[in-house]
Amino acid sequence: MSHQEFRAINFGAGPGCIPDSVLLEAQKELLNFQGCGKSIMEVSHRGKEFEKVIQETKSNLIKVLSIPDDYDILFLQGGASSLFSGIPMNLCESPNDVVDFIVTGAWSKGASTDGKYFCKVNKVADMEPEKFLTVTDPSQWKFSPDSTYIHYCDNETVHGVEMPPSTPDHFPEGRIVVCDMSSNFLSKPVNVSKYDLIFAGAQKNAGISGITIVIIKKSLLTKTKPSVPSVFNFLKKSQNNSLDNTPPTFNIYITGLVLKWIIKEGGLEEMERRSIEKSSNLYKFIDGSNGFYRCGIDAKYRSRMNVVFRIQDGNEQLEEKFVKEASKHNITDIKGHRSVGGLRVSLYNAITVDQTKKLIEFMTSFMNENKQ
Amino acid sequence: MSHQEFRAINFGAGPGCIPDSVLLEAQKELLNFQGCGKSIMEVSHRGKEFEKVIQETKSNLIKVLSIPDDYDILFLQGGASSLFSGIPMNLCESPNDVVDFIVTGAWSKGASTDGKYFCKVNKVADMEPEKFLTVTDPSQWKFSPDSTYIHYCDNETVHGVEMPPSTPDHFPEGRIVVCDMSSNFLSKPVNVSKYDLIFAGAQKNAGISGITIVIIKKSLLTKTKPSVPSVFNFLKKSQNNSLDNTPPTFNIYITGLVLKWIIKEGGLEEMERRSIEKSSNLYKFIDGSNGFYRCGIDAKYRSRMNVVFRIQDGNEQLEEKFVKEASKHNITDIKGHRSVGGLRVSLYNAITVDQTKKLIEFMTSFMNENKQ
Repeated sequence: MSHQEFRAINFGAGPGCIPDSVLLEAQKELLNFQGCGKSIMEVSHRGKEFEKVIQETKSNLIKVLSIPDDYDILFLQGGASSLFSGIPMNLCESPNDVVDFIVTGAWSKGASTDGKYFCKVNKVADMEPEKFLTVTDPSQWKFSPDSTYIHYCDNETVHGVEMPPSTPDHFPEGRIVVCDMSSNFLSKPVNVSKYDLIFAGAQKNAGISGITIVIIKKSLLTKTKPSVPSVFNFLKKSQNNSLDNTPPTFNIYITGLVLKWIIKEGGLEEMERRSIEKSSNLYKFIDGSNGFYRCGIDAKYRSRMNVVFRIQDGNEQLEEKFVKEASKHNITDIKGHRSVGGLRVSLYNAITVDQTKKLIEFMTSFMNENKQ
Repeated sequence: MSHQEFRAINFGAGPGCIPDSVLLEAQKELLNFQGCGKSIMEVSHRGKEFEKVIQETKSNLIKVLSIPDDYDILFLQGGASSLFSGIPMNLCESPNDVVDFIVTGAWSKGASTDGKYFCKVNKVADMEPEKFLTVTDPSQWKFSPDSTYIHYCDNETVHGVEMPPSTPDHFPEGRIVVCDMSSNFLSKPVNVSKYDLIFAGAQKNAGISGITIVIIKKSLLTKTKPSVPSVFNFLKKSQNNSLDNTPPTFNIYITGLVLKWIIKEGGLEEMERRSIEKSSNLYKFIDGSNGFYRCGIDAKYRSRMNVVFRIQDGNEQLEEKFVKEASKHNITDIKGHRSVGGLRVSLYNAITVDQTKKLIEFMTSFMNENKQ
């Protein structure tokens, strides 16, 4: 049996699917990493085998994202949301510092909620009253005159909202820009120099859970006080190449394999091309379904990564049947987040254009069989 | 080629060796976890597959350690040393709270150093002036009259010092007892009820790096304030079964496989029996080598896990030759920690009695060829 036959078409929102070739490579050398007689899980984080892994992973990340020299890369633990406390702890001088949050969905809301213990929260925009279906025009955003930094989430995994690349252009000049790119990281080229701090949990497009990647402007590192806990002490992590304590070695290794796969496939330009093809095909089909399927998100802000939609404007019985029927076609993990219900299809890098076509074929036949 | 032939005899201090059978099991199902068509790395942390993994892992941990009902188990990220900040942040009401530290090596020293930002540090005993070669008699320990808790490290990985199980019996009655068991966790039965909080990084005897296990008395959870960052907010982790954010799913899975292996091999009694056999054989050989090899640690406190020794009282040239020659016998990772030099052999659960015998055979022939 080839691996393709038994593998699910996994549209999960994360931990998400991983390219077969990455898993096959990890499987092949799981007991004997590059001939060293040990698993990559068993090597010392300070030994020559892991040293090579972490350096290659860093340099490949620099390569695919064209990260300028004045930025450092940190590998942290705790998940991206742990940085909702960690970032203000590093960047704010006191809890009286004001931080601007653009609240466009569950994750930027979470950042503003956790942040309140370490800074004064100013909501530049709060889309919750609009059920996170759209984003107010940047001309309406209400920045604080003296915020320590601006925080926003580039892609809201739960609500299916993605911000345009031009977003930071609307910020007051000279402000520190912090961006949570967890769920669209490595899905497109990014102009890193528009940001001072980019962070992302790996378990969407960049590997598996248990590792958080931080890209930080080196000049920001001077802000970290020695009292910031080591788990997210940016200065300490930078000074020690993220090895001040034992990092999640296997998790970094998988990110390294994913980066090699991205390079081999054509880099972030190709990832973006595919993500546009996959998501446009799906949105186009949904919009053309005469309301059988409906995506409520403002077209300008629809996510290429997480497509949220309802059947017959929220027919839960039919949605349940949809999930069940889909599984017979090996299509899995398409339930919406428990906080919003409905359906959600995540189109991360490891999902192919063909797999998305198979989904649309299934959605077509399901519609034909179930529409009144 | 069978896996035994190419596998190194890996005496590394951590990330350490993992039983072959655990690696083979992980390898076998790496692309298709229990027939679900997905890797365990790709399943949702809230889905039925992972739900089963985390529950089994918890209940097997309860089983092997006979953990009483009034304790909870938390799976955290960040490494054990992240809790050097996290524990006082959870347990202390204010930075004026006094915490008693017994400083017996690098890790308890680290805990007292990081702790100073969150509590007043009282060193009950500080063995650094004695180069951490021994521990003063408990009758000499100077506890604070009103410490919020007592912190000690059961096994010092760098310095090779292990505390006797009777240690907490010497503490003032009613005091909260916190124990760092990172490097001897799951190497012997433990009377959990002597402790209020046990914590351990998994990468020694309990799995791979990227996961930290906390066993906490439930009554302690009321101390956690909402401002404690989620990454080590014990109350939040407990209330959410460690799933308030995406946990390191693969890392928890490996701990689960290791626990099943421990149970199959005969539980912690058998792990202890083996560790005593392995370490006594090695210490006996070292002590009988007429000073060619020498372990400077007070015999009462010698670690079963990490055997530190020198050749000819610190002949670095010969020690280097020893490491090189050992590698020709497939014996690896025996250099001492960079802060102390010399040699260190770690005898974690996955190291067999036979592998230790092979090491002693090599040490014998090396001695015979190199003694004057």
